Amino acid sequence: MKVAVLCSGRGSNLLALLEAAEAGLLGPAELRLVLADSKEAGAINIAREWGLYAAVVPRTAYHANRDGFERRLLEVMAPHEIEIVVLAGFLRVLGPVFLAAFPNKIINVHPALLPAFPGRDVWPLEVASGVKLAGATVHLVEKGVDSGPIIIQGSVPVLDEDEPETLAARILKVEHRILPQALAWLASGRLIIEDGRVRLKDLPKTGREEEVFIWPPLEG
Amino acid sequence: MKVAVLCSGRGSNLLALLEAAEAGLLGPAELRLVLADSKEAGAINIAREWGLYAAVVPRTAYHANRDGFERRLLEVMAPHEIEIVVLAGFLRVLGPVFLAAFPNKIINVHPALLPAFPGRDVWPLEVASGVKLAGATVHLVEKGVDSGPIIIQGSVPVLDEDEPETLAARILKVEHRILPQALAWLASGRLIIEDGRVRLKDLPKTGREEEVFIWPPLEG
Repeated sequence: MKVAVLCSGRGSNLLALLEAAEAGLLGPAELRLVLADSKEAGAINIAREWGLYAAVVPRTAYHANRDGFERRLLEVMAPHEIEIVVLAGFLRVLGPVFLAAFPNKIINVHPALLPAFPGRDVWPLEVASGVKLAGATVHLVEKGVDSGPIIIQGSVPVLDEDEPETLAARILKVEHRILPQALAWLASGRLIIEDGRVRLKDLPKTGREEEVFIWPPLEG
Repeated sequence: MKVAVLCSGRGSNLLALLEAAEAGLLGPAELRLVLADSKEAGAINIAREWGLYAAVVPRTAYHANRDGFERRLLEVMAPHEIEIVVLAGFLRVLGPVFLAAFPNKIINVHPALLPAFPGRDVWPLEVASGVKLAGATVHLVEKGVDSGPIIIQGSVPVLDEDEPETLAARILKVEHRILPQALAWLASGRLIIEDGRVRLKDLPKTGREEEVFIWPPLEG
């Protein structure tokens, strides 16, 4: 399954995907193409260092023309026969043109325990809200911001001394673990989507079903 | 610190508090009084079995008169010199009359990872939403439904085969662990409230700060 990764930022999730691929953790998913919406995106350099085809489709060239921007993305992708799209810190909301080309084959990673804290720049909101557990979510992309069936989530503590930056770093480590896993499941046909919920085919019982993660930790 | 527990239901969280008290886990908190808003509340029987003073203030006698209901609650509590109030499955939203009597001394347990899923009967919503992590929250009670500074949270997996009842049972086990802990911290003056956030005095570093709880579990 040929995969395109769309990025706007430094590319740390792209790097996690590349390392997972090298470790054989992506199943039948093959990373083929990296697209960035700005030439400032560090992801472009990472892609090139790893010998991956990378292209920039500058969003600024298409202001107020989302459809045109998305058609250009699809044109650039066409020769690569892409089957799955991973949004890895891609800061554009995709519209019907792009979504229709990959039904149930686009995944996004979001730095919060959705449905809490959708949208952009959520870390200051998470810290200010006083939640004790934060986390990350990988979900299938549908119309709407950070909605769509959830594939996997991970929770982390919010520490009393956290600033948005320290919390973001802790959450990012979770993103790096759950995004490759979600991609591997999608590429290997393990995801069953019903009524907006994702079930995982052949999930073995591990005893972890009874686990609980509490923060702050219990005393006494 | 003398504590009143307000209940509407079976009283399983009350039982968890009584067992925690017996095990010496409530610090300086002393359970003194149980109030229910209906004589059908099983919590009343549990309180009497454990030799705790219990009273019913039927909400139905005060329909459309929340202030009157709350004044009656305060009257019943007055002789017991209550300093802390625990809402343990209490299905009434408290208003200014009651809240003003116990500023920052009322806690509530809610079966979700707030701010996600506030309100009543959340388990069907949690299951239908397709989230992979659910949980429970104990927070200080302020004006508003299930808002107020968060003291402690616990997350649990949502299994593919979960129905609202099975998820509710898994979450309830977390409630039983975090509610006594939150009460112990409040009673012993460990909670520092600043800008709507709770910090915990003298929280030792345990190494658990780096823990992550991911669901479904990672493979490979």
